[in-house]
Amino acid sequence: MRHITLITGGSRSGKSRFALQQGEAHPGPHAFIATSPALDEEMKERIRRHREERGAHWRTVEEQTDLAGALSQNASVPVVLVDCLTLWVNNLLYHDRAGKMTEDRVAEASRALLAVAAEQTGHLLLVTNETGMGIMPGNALARRFGDCAGRCNQVMASAAEQVVLMVAGLPVFVKGGTP
Amino acid sequence: MRHITLITGGSRSGKSRFALQQGEAHPGPHAFIATSPALDEEMKERIRRHREERGAHWRTVEEQTDLAGALSQNASVPVVLVDCLTLWVNNLLYHDRAGKMTEDRVAEASRALLAVAAEQTGHLLLVTNETGMGIMPGNALARRFGDCAGRCNQVMASAAEQVVLMVAGLPVFVKGGTP
Amino acid sequence: MRHITLITGGSRSGKSRFALQQGEAHPGPHAFIATSPALDEEMKERIRRHREERGAHWRTVEEQTDLAGALSQNASVPVVLVDCLTLWVNNLLYHDRAGKMTEDRVAEASRALLAVAAEQTGHLLLVTNETGMGIMPGNALARRFGDCAGRCNQVMASAAEQVVLMVAGLPVFVKGGTP
Repeated sequence: MRHITLITGGSRSGKSRFALQQGEAHPGPHAFIATSPALDEEMKERIRRHREERGAHWRTVEEQTDLAGALSQNASVPVVLVDCLTLWVNNLLYHDRAGKMTEDRVAEASRALLAVAAEQTGHLLLVTNETGMGIMPGNALARRFGDCAGRCNQVMASAAEQVVLMVAGLPVFVKGGTP
Repeated sequence: MRHITLITGGSRSGKSRFALQQGEAHPGPHAFIATSPALDEEMKERIRRHREERGAHWRTVEEQTDLAGALSQNASVPVVLVDCLTLWVNNLLYHDRAGKMTEDRVAEASRALLAVAAEQTGHLLLVTNETGMGIMPGNALARRFGDCAGRCNQVMASAAEQVVLMVAGLPVFVKGGTP
Repeated sequence: MRHITLITGGSRSGKSRFALQQGEAHPGPHAFIATSPALDEEMKERIRRHREERGAHWRTVEEQTDLAGALSQNASVPVVLVDCLTLWVNNLLYHDRAGKMTEDRVAEASRALLAVAAEQTGHLLLVTNETGMGIMPGNALARRFGDCAGRCNQVMASAAEQVVLMVAGLPVFVKGGTP
């Protein structure tokens, strides 16, 4: 059973950097599962910046939708970091041509990832975003995305040993105390 | 004087479920004051889901604007839960044809609810939303709503014995320590 | 070296009032550096309200972009409060005709303010906003603003002795414990 840490927070709150530091505190090898789809130049720039920041000893795996499969393929890697769950949820909704991706199915996919982690040993660091603390946007799709992202966070937090909320680059320990 | 707990957090952060659990920890009967107006199918679906989740032992009272009156009518009910204040504030602005619903009047209406609670005994659980931690929307009405919602939260938190911020389904105790 | 307190939180979360209380706990004189540009009636109204709330013993300095300079000119004032950093970042982007105001340059400008504070004594209270916990807006400029605001907060929080997150008017101590 992997030890799970969920690192949540707003955008530019230092989530990724904190997750990398937590991961590097354990002996490697280290795998970094990147869920970002690099749709445009802005996202490519963000991806490039993140890659530079984490250095070469993190092996990058790009996986936009099948997180459970990607984790299965890294069963022997002691430290696995997923960055981030919110983009993964976004990808699930985006690739869902039939429009059937509901909150419950996102919860199911989240539990599938947890089931794989339960069969492995080592550490699993999950980076995610707080998206529900602003004024709700007017369009239904954005609200559905927010519901799915929030539900995913709840499922993961429930199974995690440690949950951290990042505020201005600093950790607030929500579950599991200091590391 | 009712013991007041304010449960705040983003959308899909587990506020309602936590509030129900807190309420069920006390002997009933239990009253659930629902402020949601059920304007469209999406909201009806949310209401239906919430009703299912809380089970039949919560008696539902629907009240969109007169929360103080609704609480007065449930004076003898030991556990009253309001879900949620942010929709109530939204309703106050929506029903205000004269456009005079200011932040100060929302504060006044909030204090009117607290005044009723001060004359009763038992528990009052107030569910509300964090709405101010995103990028401010461009239109003035949305900002005014955000100001009113934030002000309501401050008035209620100031009077509450316990204030809880929900993060990914987990409580962060902001005031009053663990239950 | 000034003792730095960073007070963050959503809009209408009680940040300014808490910062004023913290500042008034120390002997004066007190300087209040206001960064708000008063572009329209709504902002003028907010500025007027804030001015009333803080009372006459706070001397107001209006400075929209050169915070380091404004702090230099108040070197002998023992208590300086800046309200707020997020509007300052907004002003930096707004006044940047060349479109070169990047996240890194905002970080640099933030460090310039800290360098001035390091040469002075007394207290520096910095009010800022959480802007990254909602659903990301669709336009790139708003996202760039959010990135810059978040980066500024990280730089300031890293140097601050105390970091406080305001929730419904109540402080959550993220760094440095209770005052």
